[in-house]
Amino acid sequence: MNAEIIAVGSELLLGQIANTNAKFISTQLSELGINVFYHTVVGDNGDRLKRAIEIAESRADLIIFSGGLGPTKDDLTKETIANHLGLPLVFDDVALSYIEQFFAQWGRTMTENNRKQALILEGSEVLANHHGMAPGMLLEKDGRIYILLPGPPKEIEPMFQFEAKPKLAARLNEGGIILSHVLRFYGIGEAELEVQVQDILDNQTNPTVAPLAGDGEVTLRITAKAATEEEAWPLIRAKEAEILAIVGEYHYGNNDDSLASKIVEMLLHHNLTIAAAESLTAGLFQSELAEIPGVSGTLVGGMVTYTEQAKVQQLGIEQSLLDQYGVVSSECAAAMALKVREKFGTDIGVGLTGAAGPEPHGDQPAGTIWIGFSIGNSEPITRKLQLLGMRNSNRIRAVKLAYSYLMRLLVEKGYEKI
Amino acid sequence: MNAEIIAVGSELLLGQIANTNAKFISTQLSELGINVFYHTVVGDNGDRLKRAIEIAESRADLIIFSGGLGPTKDDLTKETIANHLGLPLVFDDVALSYIEQFFAQWGRTMTENNRKQALILEGSEVLANHHGMAPGMLLEKDGRIYILLPGPPKEIEPMFQFEAKPKLAARLNEGGIILSHVLRFYGIGEAELEVQVQDILDNQTNPTVAPLAGDGEVTLRITAKAATEEEAWPLIRAKEAEILAIVGEYHYGNNDDSLASKIVEMLLHHNLTIAAAESLTAGLFQSELAEIPGVSGTLVGGMVTYTEQAKVQQLGIEQSLLDQYGVVSSECAAAMALKVREKFGTDIGVGLTGAAGPEPHGDQPAGTIWIGFSIGNSEPITRKLQLLGMRNSNRIRAVKLAYSYLMRLLVEKGYEKI
Repeated sequence: MNAEIIAVGSELLLGQIANTNAKFISTQLSELGINVFYHTVVGDNGDRLKRAIEIAESRADLIIFSGGLGPTKDDLTKETIANHLGLPLVFDDVALSYIEQFFAQWGRTMTENNRKQALILEGSEVLANHHGMAPGMLLEKDGRIYILLPGPPKEIEPMFQFEAKPKLAARLNEGGIILSHVLRFYGIGEAELEVQVQDILDNQTNPTVAPLAGDGEVTLRITAKAATEEEAWPLIRAKEAEILAIVGEYHYGNNDDSLASKIVEMLLHHNLTIAAAESLTAGLFQSELAEIPGVSGTLVGGMVTYTEQAKVQQLGIEQSLLDQYGVVSSECAAAMALKVREKFGTDIGVGLTGAAGPEPHGDQPAGTIWIGFSIGNSEPITRKLQLLGMRNSNRIRAVKLAYSYLMRLLVEKGYEKI
Repeated sequence: MNAEIIAVGSELLLGQIANTNAKFISTQLSELGINVFYHTVVGDNGDRLKRAIEIAESRADLIIFSGGLGPTKDDLTKETIANHLGLPLVFDDVALSYIEQFFAQWGRTMTENNRKQALILEGSEVLANHHGMAPGMLLEKDGRIYILLPGPPKEIEPMFQFEAKPKLAARLNEGGIILSHVLRFYGIGEAELEVQVQDILDNQTNPTVAPLAGDGEVTLRITAKAATEEEAWPLIRAKEAEILAIVGEYHYGNNDDSLASKIVEMLLHHNLTIAAAESLTAGLFQSELAEIPGVSGTLVGGMVTYTEQAKVQQLGIEQSLLDQYGVVSSECAAAMALKVREKFGTDIGVGLTGAAGPEPHGDQPAGTIWIGFSIGNSEPITRKLQLLGMRNSNRIRAVKLAYSYLMRLLVEKGYEKI
């Protein structure tokens, strides 16, 4: 089975939002072993949507639509599909009562255009929407499967995962499966990594190995085809071992791992607590750690010391140190790491300071960043970055590099990587 | 002129990344008044890419490609286009010397596959890449314009903005223009807003008005067609005034404004300083403010008090208060706001506490969040949220709602909205 995802919405073509729905659904389909060959985005325009459907029908067995199921006049996905397939739209009583209930529960007045959302394609299975009003649909016709999903991410994600995916999985009978496993690397460029594993890339059949770079990271995706998952895993594991024997030192995690999730896992495993003092990153280092459930076992807290005054008065850094070296300095980063560790009584303290941009900070050009690490009672260690990006990419990059340096420092100190 | 954007890369079809390049280029094209009718995503596969090009040629005058210009074997965009258009690839000396210089500057070894990046389509204009190695290209052939851009966002964005866009603008002769202006609202649902401005939506010709909901926000996009920008603006301004007369109280900004950028603007304008104490959001409130250049004029800093111990020891909240009311309480949020304002000596203090999820916090279900505001010497004010989302959407939503409440509280206290 191969799939095409059609996202409907002029806001996508105007660049107001990115097509994150296609990203999400693609991940889910790849877990089912369904190949996605194309994503298409089309505006709120019946004629152009109809032509996009015709093209998709010429190249896909499964067509998944996102968006255009809402109450407004711009929402015309199901109307266009109904017209194209020659099917009537009929009211679904369950969906209608759910919409009425939704309005009652939130104490809002139900307007007439909300009723329109309970219309479904005749003969389709309803996909319940527990986070919004427009129901989804799954329709089989002429050997093809059409799935209609709403546009808002908080509605489409649970609907696909809990309503559409099980129905799709049930329809995929005992053909072979495709299993992917992604290895994540940090601290090595894409071309350099590729040269190191050239032999593996040149001689791939099953599993295949594909590199991808992005956001300072490089990944290698290993994809195996086999009759069952049990037969696919040994193929993947063998290839993984081959790769890690060559570039293992840069490997930090797999699949959905992030540098933040791995560092949290590692800190929890070794029973280490952490605090941070942040200047240019202003809380981003801590906030990204807090995305990981269970982080309260390691993250005690920290400070945002955006101004010089906050660094002195709140963190207790000596004014003379700042006068002598400036806030964008190794000395300041080290002092921030040390002071925040002492103040919060943690095992590890991290300090981030620098000139995010667009303006330089005194004689320090934009993109000059210092990161300090205070681990236990050892002398603080600092790292300097000279980044070339824009303000926010510099801030994001600094946080990623801080996680990656911390991981390496912990390994050097004898804490096992997980 | 109408455009199609073709993003090339299997990583997009596997859901490893979202197509943010199409979002960025679409915004840029809409500023030039160029309609984008379709986005297409296709994998690293020559045959499927060729078919996507043929379809795009049947429906667009301007075809913009992103991705597939890199050094690896998977990168085959320019090879496929060269083959399709019957054009040879030739080495560009400037690009080649730039690549060599890039490696020299960073002290890395240049591998042979990096040379491939200096190959360009014969007859194309080179678009310089100042943030990476692969040059872009602009080619005119048979009345169509083809633009080839690299995949990494930090390369494509400056290249499009500073290299491709001026060349496109020069080619757009004195036909009419399309100008868009987006009004942003917070605190009103999409259907409710649409009902309120129904007459305007029903009677639109030029300008047109289109609603869009997302992430708790609603926007109305006003789009005018006219001979010149000078003629388009009065049309937009008149429609804007009509709309704001009805739903102005929910309006917070326009176009690229965010709640964070507007609150920073407002605080700077009124000369107010701010500090925050964050528990579940762990720095996100402060970090999003720090995305805005110039924020150091208002954000002094703050604390992340993730654990109860940090709230007591670092922020100075009384243990008895936490024992009596718990950390997920109005009392705790109010105390956090007050203490952080006093500690950092600012005009405003904000406190965020709650159960982000997935687990409840004691008897408080996941999604229960309290936000406290301490403004000047007035009694702290608190707001309760009961969110239904996942851990991270709850954290993000709490921060947005905190900005929006703060804006309303400041307006109530007589500070003018900007």
